[in-house]
Amino acid sequence: MNDAGANRPVDQNGFTVATRGRGFFEITRQVADLVAASAVQTGIAHVFTAHTSCSLLISENADPTVRGDLERWMARVVPDGDPMFRHDAEGPDDMPAHIRSVLCGVSLTVPVAGGRLRLGTWQGIYLWEHRTHPHQRKVTVTVLGC
Amino acid sequence: MNDAGANRPVDQNGFTVATRGRGFFEITRQVADLVAASAVQTGIAHVFTAHTSCSLLISENADPTVRGDLERWMARVVPDGDPMFRHDAEGPDDMPAHIRSVLCGVSLTVPVAGGRLRLGTWQGIYLWEHRTHPHQRKVTVTVLGC
Amino acid sequence: MNDAGANRPVDQNGFTVATRGRGFFEITRQVADLVAASAVQTGIAHVFTAHTSCSLLISENADPTVRGDLERWMARVVPDGDPMFRHDAEGPDDMPAHIRSVLCGVSLTVPVAGGRLRLGTWQGIYLWEHRTHPHQRKVTVTVLGC
Repeated sequence: MNDAGANRPVDQNGFTVATRGRGFFEITRQVADLVAASAVQTGIAHVFTAHTSCSLLISENADPTVRGDLERWMARVVPDGDPMFRHDAEGPDDMPAHIRSVLCGVSLTVPVAGGRLRLGTWQGIYLWEHRTHPHQRKVTVTVLGC
Repeated sequence: MNDAGANRPVDQNGFTVATRGRGFFEITRQVADLVAASAVQTGIAHVFTAHTSCSLLISENADPTVRGDLERWMARVVPDGDPMFRHDAEGPDDMPAHIRSVLCGVSLTVPVAGGRLRLGTWQGIYLWEHRTHPHQRKVTVTVLGC
Repeated sequence: MNDAGANRPVDQNGFTVATRGRGFFEITRQVADLVAASAVQTGIAHVFTAHTSCSLLISENADPTVRGDLERWMARVVPDGDPMFRHDAEGPDDMPAHIRSVLCGVSLTVPVAGGRLRLGTWQGIYLWEHRTHPHQRKVTVTVLGC
């Protein structure tokens, strides 16, 4: 495996998340499977989504009330339909989705060790859909190392 | 090109952004050009700015009202001259600039595929100057892969 | 050193930060030392913490009032004991710690050049403990390049 790793130091793959509107969609399993399938034993896994109205984040993976509280807090800080916003052609969730996307970001990087994704016990990787309607969200995973 | 990539798995270059005070300065072209000039076909591009009062971000690149709304929202959540702030030696925008910089971050990582920066259709890379006066902002781009 | 770099393109190490409750703990020295000890001359250093209630951030390293202001601002925007939060089994700081962790993130990536971590003059790397009680926080540093 080490020799294979030396010859193929980078693996890049992708998948699509079909969201059902605003909310959290866990992608830990998909990312971990791509890392395990790669030749990289030690390195990093970079996860990226090519959109401006959703986010990637690492959050607590055990209690679903954490995601509910995140959603409620964000809705208070970045309210849909705020009259301050001029960019509203796609509806009251249009500009809030862009702000949420900037605040949480569209990429994550996680260590790889022993050929596996090394998240903490309580860490899960989520795609956070910020639009109220369903979307197809592309995710690219790049694994680098040796 | 593949052989060259194997021999030169990393390219690092930089440029300076001369800001004209608070606002957004698109750097997508500069980053994409450095990626295209590198020997890396598949991997990642890391973009970093060596300051604590500006940010890098990926945001919607078509409608300038998105950036205007981002600026207005941030000015409401992190107000200049807030009496809560003790760090104000450089003016009312001093501490807000540091908070904005922490919230949005000073680095980005984007996939590279086929020798090109792989942003989504509507994604642009921006340097967000948070100080009200012009500054010279250093940006470093590191491209890794094979 | 270049040959060694080609043979060992990745170095991964870790350390633990014993926090004393909510506040900032600088880890610039530990990260810089791991970069200097690695065989990588040009590349990136990725820093990751495997938890969901603390953050890593780059912030101003000279005036401690910056960190005080960051703490006060965050306490206003994400208040402890907010009745909006349902996830409070571990106390009034439980859910705010998760939100702060999502906002600031749990990983950082910094350029490496000339075998050294290339932060700006005023940039320091901090672990931000968001819980009010002390914790042991694991940090993993992965250095990639050549």
